[in-house]
Amino acid sequence: MAVFNKIALIGIGLIGSSIARVVRERSIANKIAISTRSQQTLDEAIALNLGDEYHTDPTKIVEDADLVILCTPIGVVGKITRAISTHLKPGSIISDVSSVKVSVIEQMLPHIPDGVNFIPAHPVAGTEKSGPKHGFPTLFDNRWCILTPVESSSDKAIELLKEFWQACGSNIEIMEAEHHDRVLAITSHLPQLIAYNIVGTADDLETVTNSEVIKYSAGGFRDSTRLAASDPTMWRDVCLHNKEAILEMLARFSEDLSAMQRAVRWADGEALFDIFTRTRNIRREIIDAGQEIDVSNFGRDE
Amino acid sequence: MAVFNKIALIGIGLIGSSIARVVRERSIANKIAISTRSQQTLDEAIALNLGDEYHTDPTKIVEDADLVILCTPIGVVGKITRAISTHLKPGSIISDVSSVKVSVIEQMLPHIPDGVNFIPAHPVAGTEKSGPKHGFPTLFDNRWCILTPVESSSDKAIELLKEFWQACGSNIEIMEAEHHDRVLAITSHLPQLIAYNIVGTADDLETVTNSEVIKYSAGGFRDSTRLAASDPTMWRDVCLHNKEAILEMLARFSEDLSAMQRAVRWADGEALFDIFTRTRNIRREIIDAGQEIDVSNFGRDE
Repeated sequence: MAVFNKIALIGIGLIGSSIARVVRERSIANKIAISTRSQQTLDEAIALNLGDEYHTDPTKIVEDADLVILCTPIGVVGKITRAISTHLKPGSIISDVSSVKVSVIEQMLPHIPDGVNFIPAHPVAGTEKSGPKHGFPTLFDNRWCILTPVESSSDKAIELLKEFWQACGSNIEIMEAEHHDRVLAITSHLPQLIAYNIVGTADDLETVTNSEVIKYSAGGFRDSTRLAASDPTMWRDVCLHNKEAILEMLARFSEDLSAMQRAVRWADGEALFDIFTRTRNIRREIIDAGQEIDVSNFGRDE
Repeated sequence: MAVFNKIALIGIGLIGSSIARVVRERSIANKIAISTRSQQTLDEAIALNLGDEYHTDPTKIVEDADLVILCTPIGVVGKITRAISTHLKPGSIISDVSSVKVSVIEQMLPHIPDGVNFIPAHPVAGTEKSGPKHGFPTLFDNRWCILTPVESSSDKAIELLKEFWQACGSNIEIMEAEHHDRVLAITSHLPQLIAYNIVGTADDLETVTNSEVIKYSAGGFRDSTRLAASDPTMWRDVCLHNKEAILEMLARFSEDLSAMQRAVRWADGEALFDIFTRTRNIRREIIDAGQEIDVSNFGRDE
């Protein structure tokens, strides 16, 4: 049985279109309405047959929706919420998919009308590709979806949204928004910035050409390039909206890197061996937790 | 037709055992002799039927070998070359597989007898796994193998070694040892150290638990853990033996990271967007060059 009668997706990129696909495939809602600002992206969504109703104006698709999910970059969720606010159905749920939660709450909460349940959510899943055509229905399978309910979110609405994400394949975790933002700063935002930085550093070298970097990238560099191929708008907004936690993680990372650099300079083999040994097991634990595939080299070669 | 009659592999980890497998599978040599210091590893190699002749003492397997390849950590190649020096067959080739070339030449060259061709080599290929059982015969297919011949290497011997590595599946590049070490410092050694460092930083946090890092690792963190699962001994030796080039790349990386950190602190969205945009194309170029697979998320999900 469907969890909701109608859902409205505002924004139809990788995450929005993956939600549309899994909802359609598993009949999690009876009706899918899609809105996106750009007519071109909307046309792509129509061509992919992702929904039942399409509009460039989000106010037009939310009026009878039981669940509205904002799947846009973080920077615009406040503006959109303000725009659709008076059109939301009493008793409905409004949620999002952003990788940052404190800022999303600050932006959206002031515009949530009484009687509408606001439950921020973050499905921790994705790929380096963006746009509606790159979504796929199994994206959320066995990934975690973190809910960070605000005080006014009703228990019944939280239960329904949990049920929705579980039907999409996710495991559910409830968390404080502040804690979420620190957890994601280390598990997602820092690795992302580091990947962008390493690719940028390589790109700038005068003594090693780009074509050499590309040719010999199998030495380890190509791993970094996956994250560095992600959507720049999305990641700019993450940086702007999770500034404090990201700066803390960057500072810690830099301190640790200085210590490693010192060990290299002083040829401290023992210190290097210790650092390189303690990090070895964490991958095994991630595989055991079902969050990584158990094949070497990401299964590229064997 | 076989390129060599007999090859001798000293060290039988991921690379050595992959050479043994491809040589056997494609009949690149008629006879494979294997030596490794530890009886336990040698027993593993015997159980895997990787060779035709086995010994813990390398001097015992090189006497009639046409090609000797050192597949050990960088730290011991000098000592081993000295030990086998007087046992090498006149006219034979001695090579290695290390990720650092200047230090390998400094360590090995003084012990190379007249009439033996010393040709340092580096197949740019690998996985995060180590040990003989993790090798596989296609590891070198379509990867680059860099030769850094010394002055005394004969042209005929260089041709033969090229033929050997081509038969193993590799493309060949000839390079100066100093340049090789800078190219690998950026394409391999820096990404490796950064991966170790990011996993170490995450492991040290007091406010985010390890089990949270593991659970939400799909946000990007798990990519870093692949490289950080690599062999600590090998990487300690790389750091100790390519110190100057690694320190230069670390310094450049840190400068760039400070600039990025500043852009985050001052909420400079334009600067961040620029950094995040210029790195996007390099992955496409690596895919086009055949050095990466063309599936999103390393093919994990779809």
